[in-house]
Amino acid sequence: MKKKVGIVMGSDSDLPIIRKATDMLKSFDIPYEVHVYSAHRTPVEASLFAKNAEENGIGVIIAAAGMAAHLAGAMAANTVLPIIGIPCKSTNLDGLDALLSTVQMPTGIPVATVAIDGGANAALLAAQILALSDAELMQKLKDKRAADAKKVLEKDSQVQEMLNN
Amino acid sequence: MKKKVGIVMGSDSDLPIIRKATDMLKSFDIPYEVHVYSAHRTPVEASLFAKNAEENGIGVIIAAAGMAAHLAGAMAANTVLPIIGIPCKSTNLDGLDALLSTVQMPTGIPVATVAIDGGANAALLAAQILALSDAELMQKLKDKRAADAKKVLEKDSQVQEMLNN
Amino acid sequence: MKKKVGIVMGSDSDLPIIRKATDMLKSFDIPYEVHVYSAHRTPVEASLFAKNAEENGIGVIIAAAGMAAHLAGAMAANTVLPIIGIPCKSTNLDGLDALLSTVQMPTGIPVATVAIDGGANAALLAAQILALSDAELMQKLKDKRAADAKKVLEKDSQVQEMLNN
Amino acid sequence: MKKKVGIVMGSDSDLPIIRKATDMLKSFDIPYEVHVYSAHRTPVEASLFAKNAEENGIGVIIAAAGMAAHLAGAMAANTVLPIIGIPCKSTNLDGLDALLSTVQMPTGIPVATVAIDGGANAALLAAQILALSDAELMQKLKDKRAADAKKVLEKDSQVQEMLNN
Amino acid sequence: MKKKVGIVMGSDSDLPIIRKATDMLKSFDIPYEVHVYSAHRTPVEASLFAKNAEENGIGVIIAAAGMAAHLAGAMAANTVLPIIGIPCKSTNLDGLDALLSTVQMPTGIPVATVAIDGGANAALLAAQILALSDAELMQKLKDKRAADAKKVLEKDSQVQEMLNN
Amino acid sequence: MKKKVGIVMGSDSDLPIIRKATDMLKSFDIPYEVHVYSAHRTPVEASLFAKNAEENGIGVIIAAAGMAAHLAGAMAANTVLPIIGIPCKSTNLDGLDALLSTVQMPTGIPVATVAIDGGANAALLAAQILALSDAELMQKLKDKRAADAKKVLEKDSQVQEMLNN
Amino acid sequence: MKKKVGIVMGSDSDLPIIRKATDMLKSFDIPYEVHVYSAHRTPVEASLFAKNAEENGIGVIIAAAGMAAHLAGAMAANTVLPIIGIPCKSTNLDGLDALLSTVQMPTGIPVATVAIDGGANAALLAAQILALSDAELMQKLKDKRAADAKKVLEKDSQVQEMLNN
Amino acid sequence: MKKKVGIVMGSDSDLPIIRKATDMLKSFDIPYEVHVYSAHRTPVEASLFAKNAEENGIGVIIAAAGMAAHLAGAMAANTVLPIIGIPCKSTNLDGLDALLSTVQMPTGIPVATVAIDGGANAALLAAQILALSDAELMQKLKDKRAADAKKVLEKDSQVQEMLNN
Repeated sequence: MKKKVGIVMGSDSDLPIIRKATDMLKSFDIPYEVHVYSAHRTPVEASLFAKNAEENGIGVIIAAAGMAAHLAGAMAANTVLPIIGIPCKSTNLDGLDALLSTVQMPTGIPVATVAIDGGANAALLAAQILALSDAELMQKLKDKRAADAKKVLEKDSQVQEMLNN
Repeated sequence: MKKKVGIVMGSDSDLPIIRKATDMLKSFDIPYEVHVYSAHRTPVEASLFAKNAEENGIGVIIAAAGMAAHLAGAMAANTVLPIIGIPCKSTNLDGLDALLSTVQMPTGIPVATVAIDGGANAALLAAQILALSDAELMQKLKDKRAADAKKVLEKDSQVQEMLNN
Repeated sequence: MKKKVGIVMGSDSDLPIIRKATDMLKSFDIPYEVHVYSAHRTPVEASLFAKNAEENGIGVIIAAAGMAAHLAGAMAANTVLPIIGIPCKSTNLDGLDALLSTVQMPTGIPVATVAIDGGANAALLAAQILALSDAELMQKLKDKRAADAKKVLEKDSQVQEMLNN
Repeated sequence: MKKKVGIVMGSDSDLPIIRKATDMLKSFDIPYEVHVYSAHRTPVEASLFAKNAEENGIGVIIAAAGMAAHLAGAMAANTVLPIIGIPCKSTNLDGLDALLSTVQMPTGIPVATVAIDGGANAALLAAQILALSDAELMQKLKDKRAADAKKVLEKDSQVQEMLNN
Repeated sequence: MKKKVGIVMGSDSDLPIIRKATDMLKSFDIPYEVHVYSAHRTPVEASLFAKNAEENGIGVIIAAAGMAAHLAGAMAANTVLPIIGIPCKSTNLDGLDALLSTVQMPTGIPVATVAIDGGANAALLAAQILALSDAELMQKLKDKRAADAKKVLEKDSQVQEMLNN
Repeated sequence: MKKKVGIVMGSDSDLPIIRKATDMLKSFDIPYEVHVYSAHRTPVEASLFAKNAEENGIGVIIAAAGMAAHLAGAMAANTVLPIIGIPCKSTNLDGLDALLSTVQMPTGIPVATVAIDGGANAALLAAQILALSDAELMQKLKDKRAADAKKVLEKDSQVQEMLNN
Repeated sequence: MKKKVGIVMGSDSDLPIIRKATDMLKSFDIPYEVHVYSAHRTPVEASLFAKNAEENGIGVIIAAAGMAAHLAGAMAANTVLPIIGIPCKSTNLDGLDALLSTVQMPTGIPVATVAIDGGANAALLAAQILALSDAELMQKLKDKRAADAKKVLEKDSQVQEMLNN
Repeated sequence: MKKKVGIVMGSDSDLPIIRKATDMLKSFDIPYEVHVYSAHRTPVEASLFAKNAEENGIGVIIAAAGMAAHLAGAMAANTVLPIIGIPCKSTNLDGLDALLSTVQMPTGIPVATVAIDGGANAALLAAQILALSDAELMQKLKDKRAADAKKVLEKDSQVQEMLNN
């Protein structure tokens, strides 16, 4: 059976970023489940989710949080599954607080951090990880990569028409 | 019975900073207990410590950690006792990562953050909190404040002798 | 008699942040008084407020200021009561100036710093401090914590309905 | 056959950080190969390494580089295998340049970024990824996690003996 | 025959910045060609463009990109022609990520970096470089410099009328 | 005869900030003249202004500029009159670039730097400097200080009415 | 009678920086007095010093402090004499905390901020201010400026001999 | 006749960085002259150097300075020759001040900025610029690039021997 991606966000204000992740996963037919768990307001539920993830069929966890973004770290502390952290920009400090809180993990407990507000890339990274044992998904990733490249080259043609003479 | 200060550090490399805290507490005859618990490597023990703190006679918790410093937040998530966070400087980024990871807590779960590597001030703040219901301690704090001022003024005299003519 | 929370802001432009603090305190029936005092424009009144706070029945002081935010430090310099500092974001630098000016206090004079613009958390921290000698308030804090957790879990249900299938 | 971890560093000055990665991989009996390739000085070799990685039996690539650290991104641009980036601190800017150059990848090409100089965690993350289809490795990761926790608790005992009375 | 300026942008969202460059080049009658190539999504096309630039009559390359801005570096890795990098501000971090990713190049592969979003200056710098072997262009640059100065002095007159009395 | 304040701005986009300065100077009846001179586009005029300032009856120069804000430094390099620098926020980096470019002057050539966009304070500082030999102006500064304090205390009354009960 | 420069430092650890200031003042025969006053540990003495400065014959105050450097602001709050602030680097954050705490003053209370650890420049700026009503000092400043230029040109000669051929 | 590279440094403390530039230029047989000129202490000599550079046979100017690094900008303001700026790290702020002061130039006056302390790359960039009209130099640059690549691949062999088995 296919492994799921578990997605947790610290607050439902992170929903627009998570939607980019779920859209990406859907495009690859990767099953997922989404939760709102706060490392600070619901520490028990958050850690239980991570602890039970493996036996619940989850292969990778994506955690999105802002400010002192501890959610990805709290996931990582409770499972050895790979954890992908999305630092979310909040009102102040332009996302730098969440980035440092997510990426600067101590030795022993890594979090695979993507760019600030990087919902789509978090899902892509999860897909890349799952594709290591899923040849069909690996092919889909290659196809998407080729399609992305084609889009850039189409833009290139448009821009050349527009700006060159 | 006097309430204790519970002190946790994320790694024993933070010991020099914690010693400044314990020295300060000792000077006020405030009881304390010190632990090494990692929010990430020992999440269960860390959260149990916070959960049981109140019934174990602890009034205030001081948590010191570096990098993606989640320890104070993990304490705060598991008790409503006041939590004092010490962001510790580690090898890179000059303590900014620990500062933002400690202070930028989400609404509902405050951490009383002191300066980077501020072990002595964390203990003083704990003492100030405990002194609200301990008149003797309050007096000791005032005495220390007066003694600190006197030391500054002695330095002032020395410097005047040295530099003025 | 219940101790009050003293609240000072450096400028009435910080009022929206202070309102989050007073709303929180009201919800706990904690008495408070609010003032506009500037550490720089009204240094005498600001320091008198701190000096007289204890005998005026104040237990904790919350100070909110932006830019070179000295107000919390000015409070701390004039009393041994615990001081909670709220660094306020102003037009430039995204609140980093106020954060560093508030938290990086020298040894001997701590300020319990909360997140940038963290009005609600400052009040919560004040409540946690006062609750150490007020069992009823301690219970209210636990109830609020449980209610907050419930709200997160309700969001979780909503999000699961919305995004999972 | 077991998948290898491919490790590239931008310069042999990053060797001490890479050794932490290889030591970790060795402790899990994960095969690996290490290379010095510069995204800028040997762009052809660097991209060929990534392009051929999959058919050379590599499952995950770890890339370590400092300053305008493009190596992980150059790997990611040339394969859909998961790429782990280690931002390395160099003489100036305390690693912030390498961190931002590694983590702030554009949509479509994620890099799983670990902490500045985080060689050991990069290897652990690689192991966690490979363990998704390697039950034995998964168990080793759990054993290591338990051993790490035990070490923390031993430190806790030592510290308690040293500081408590 | 006159050498062209080759312009590449990592994404067509950088078009407004590139237009400032092309407007400037047009004003000097410097031929140019514009492309959209991504260092990450179209690494082959991007490096081919740089590799073939010299024989395609290009003298200087301008590369504009945001976030982990590797495009200028990817150009520089594939030609010894001078490369001018424009770090572009994206949604978060105010352009600091792109600036550091563009300017902090390792020894051996310089990128001539201009200000964040500095499209016009990138083109001016390209013109200054080409003018070293084009006396007519050199004169145009001096004329423009004089015209710019005149505009400042006209503003000076206006401001004096408006504000002085 | 009263000394004038010389005001220069690097671009007329800084006019709103300069108006705050001229309004303040007007309120003290301090004569001033305003110019638009760019350290880079009109270096000769800029340095001449500084060189001739003393004999033109100028006592203090205020210089406002953004980005790589060299204008205040260019003034300081060409006169020993006191120079006040206003770092102006521009589109990116939140004014940090202008602040560091203005304040971090090398030994021998100080610039008295005020807050980012601090037009009013630059004028106040100029007034404070001129007041050292102008008793009437000194008195006006004290009156303004008292009036400012009164305004804060009026706000205090209003806020107390609004928030206390 | 000549006005004195009043110098205050927040801690005697700032002495090396203050010595650069006193050496500079001595070289101009400007009288000065030096004090150690802490804005936080001796707030009364600090504000009294500022309040009495004018009648004690002081014309300009230099204040040096590190971390949440409030000393210059505390001076400025208690006098309308011009205040020069020296932000001092302490153990962490490379002086950025002190710089922002010193320069980002609110409207109404300017501090003339010099570079981090800029003791010599603070004294020079004080001299420039006092020179406005002291023609002899003005001449000395011009002489020093000329001497500084000469030193640079001597270094130029040495370097040309060493490096050119 | 071959164009020279003009090199200016703001202080002879930048000599170690400049030596890397001169060594590089020597290796390409590019003539150069080196000067110590300060934008602030010797503004006249600095601007004269730039103004006369073209007629003195200089094709490119390299300017190295630290702190509020205005030297490259001062060069750029006085000639339309291409200016290469080297931001030099000084005691505080890790070179960020010099970087922003060098790169964030206003429209009209570009400075081609290289990495902090990037002496060798500044010279390489100058060589790349001069090579546009010097086929022999262009070939040398290609040879050096190939040699650099070879060195990386030799390191690769060494590292493979050392770490792989």
